[in-house]
Amino acid sequence: MRIEKLTNTISLLRSVEQANADHLTTVREVITDVRKNGDLALFRYTEKWDGAKLTSLKVTKEEMDEAYANFDRQLIGDLEEAAANIRVFHTEQVRKQIDFPLANNSYIQYKISPLDAVGLYVPGGTAAYPSSVLMNAIPALVAGVGRVVIVSPPSSNGKLPDSVLVAARIAGITEIYKVGGAQAIAALAYGTESIRAVDKITGPGNSFVALAKREVFGRVAIDMIAGPSEITIIADETAYADEVAADLLAQAEHDRFASSVLITTSETLAEQVSSEVERQLKLLPREEIARASIENFGYIYIAESLEQAVDAVNELAPEHLEIITKQPEELSKKIKHAGAIFIGRFSSEPVGDYFAGTNHVLPTNSTARFSSGLCVDDFVKKTSVVYYSKEMWQEQYPKIARLARLEQLEGHARSVESRSWDKGDSQ
Amino acid sequence: MRIEKLTNTISLLRSVEQANADHLTTVREVITDVRKNGDLALFRYTEKWDGAKLTSLKVTKEEMDEAYANFDRQLIGDLEEAAANIRVFHTEQVRKQIDFPLANNSYIQYKISPLDAVGLYVPGGTAAYPSSVLMNAIPALVAGVGRVVIVSPPSSNGKLPDSVLVAARIAGITEIYKVGGAQAIAALAYGTESIRAVDKITGPGNSFVALAKREVFGRVAIDMIAGPSEITIIADETAYADEVAADLLAQAEHDRFASSVLITTSETLAEQVSSEVERQLKLLPREEIARASIENFGYIYIAESLEQAVDAVNELAPEHLEIITKQPEELSKKIKHAGAIFIGRFSSEPVGDYFAGTNHVLPTNSTARFSSGLCVDDFVKKTSVVYYSKEMWQEQYPKIARLARLEQLEGHARSVESRSWDKGDSQ
Repeated sequence: MRIEKLTNTISLLRSVEQANADHLTTVREVITDVRKNGDLALFRYTEKWDGAKLTSLKVTKEEMDEAYANFDRQLIGDLEEAAANIRVFHTEQVRKQIDFPLANNSYIQYKISPLDAVGLYVPGGTAAYPSSVLMNAIPALVAGVGRVVIVSPPSSNGKLPDSVLVAARIAGITEIYKVGGAQAIAALAYGTESIRAVDKITGPGNSFVALAKREVFGRVAIDMIAGPSEITIIADETAYADEVAADLLAQAEHDRFASSVLITTSETLAEQVSSEVERQLKLLPREEIARASIENFGYIYIAESLEQAVDAVNELAPEHLEIITKQPEELSKKIKHAGAIFIGRFSSEPVGDYFAGTNHVLPTNSTARFSSGLCVDDFVKKTSVVYYSKEMWQEQYPKIARLARLEQLEGHARSVESRSWDKGDSQ
Repeated sequence: MRIEKLTNTISLLRSVEQANADHLTTVREVITDVRKNGDLALFRYTEKWDGAKLTSLKVTKEEMDEAYANFDRQLIGDLEEAAANIRVFHTEQVRKQIDFPLANNSYIQYKISPLDAVGLYVPGGTAAYPSSVLMNAIPALVAGVGRVVIVSPPSSNGKLPDSVLVAARIAGITEIYKVGGAQAIAALAYGTESIRAVDKITGPGNSFVALAKREVFGRVAIDMIAGPSEITIIADETAYADEVAADLLAQAEHDRFASSVLITTSETLAEQVSSEVERQLKLLPREEIARASIENFGYIYIAESLEQAVDAVNELAPEHLEIITKQPEELSKKIKHAGAIFIGRFSSEPVGDYFAGTNHVLPTNSTARFSSGLCVDDFVKKTSVVYYSKEMWQEQYPKIARLARLEQLEGHARSVESRSWDKGDSQ
């Protein structure tokens, strides 16, 4: 890995994948087709792109039971424990309605209510991660969303991976459809004969899926469109090079655009990590992907001080930050911008990716400056309620009318003044 | 106003304003220019489009003091009282960090921290609403945002309206720049010599501003891009036609795309409101705008029952809902989707627009199904923190490694396993 001196303006070479203009044309055609032809279009695209000739889109109870019966018992236990951890921590995020009394028996309220229906996209093939099923589904269910649906492209044998069905069952989802790509997003946004429309679509996907989500945004809500995954590690001379290298490679194996950055105050560690990365790379099953990622987006920076390292991190606002230093907790208090922070050498990123209970859907590409990981808030909406009694209105309306006239909105002033004619006092 | 029978699938003719393609080209040129030429570009555009030849962008303390000294004392009192109400209610929304202990002295945390810097766009001319300054600025300040900045286009005399400067001062903002349009949005997103970049941009604006916000989205966060304003009123035979008509017109006077809908169980009220609207329209200063709005987007629906009215509202998900019936509070509990709900005849919409303390920046165009009005949450972000002790890691890592291998992410498994070599137990 290349080693550079940390300068005050750290700027990473980031090649964000460009949306393909040809894909956009295809995506728009697919959406129009699904809106017009419904299920028929879904069957047609699933045959064309996934090679699966289906007669029904919905996963049956028998398929769910079979997947569960076939699945490794120990792994089911692991997934159940992970799900329980995620559920418990996200339940802590649930908020209560605010009831705020005013004078004269009046009040305002802030109602917090779950969305009616949410769709979760699960990619196919090796990118079908059961952990992502848990991370997307559980916050929605904890929020109280009435209907949580999964869509995922089938293999050519017309099946979904057992791991996805098992994770869905553990999360508590039974409505699952075998459809992927832009056609699945169109179905979720507009509805077809088999698939009722939802209010929000979350979950990762390829560029067709990302483009389709952008297209239907406004009709429905969407989660973030995530960029490539990133880690930054702050380490001092107390860190072990093999551990730091393993953590950098865990990020790099995701895809060739993933970014792994080490910022260290120790030149010795920098050099050791650099050779460790090379040694471990050769032993990694996904060596080719990880090597491309490290070569293009891997950096080791030597910092003059931990303070300089912290400043650089606050500038980068990385998705994941590990702190492996003598006093990692102290240092973490100075971090202003990061999606998730992992403290000390025993809290490496996979602890949060899979198990601790925090969410692994996190803001990428420096957006941690102003946005947050997936959470219960993403599946609720807030409605304000205002009740003014007659007495309250009598006290306050002249002020309201004056403020309206200040803005030259005479109709607003007349709306509150219209009550002043004495017609009785119902409500 | 036209009167129709409410059918089960109420679908309003909504003409959402189309973004102008010519404007987009201009907006992109402006953004490039500001990124390249900084303040010089801002001065040039301000002279060209606002007719103001400036030598400095920042509003001075003297200008602030003068505006305040010139301003009507009673109106200052009204604005201060409105600001206090907004501040108190938004303070109720502030959330605390979650500290969540785990076994083995481990923990997870959910840190809630304010954004560093936010920019608020305030339109010029008659659309410069002091109430919007309060509604956008106060939630940001209550959230703890360190730097809240206003940008607004000056008149040709190089000044901003007194009402905007006074509202800003009452809200607690002193950093205000005389620049508007796409150039102001570019300056907020990328920074210039005079204006440091911010992390989020909120506030309404014309189509240049809306397009520029879309363009810089991702670089910075933005609030919603609002559609035309809407009201739906549910009323029964106990409502007064003149009051309902006044409320419909208060909405209609906003702009010609605004939408005003009455759903009533009383045919008599429907007819009375229809003639009252016509009578009041002739007396309204903004008659022309309100008339266009009522003609194109005004409807009176006759419902068979209040239940049917509630179903229609839940389908519409209006920005504002007034309920003027015998038991409005009971009925309000059945409303699932609305930006804000106003209960009873003494709580007409301007009460919330100006004064009660709730926010008047609300989701339009049926997006209340899945989104919320502006609030303190819009100005904070959440960071998860994970700390696993050595003991916790020893207990849990085999499960984490198994889950990683289930997803064929061997590097993730090795990251947690790399700790297993006994090298001491720092942290």
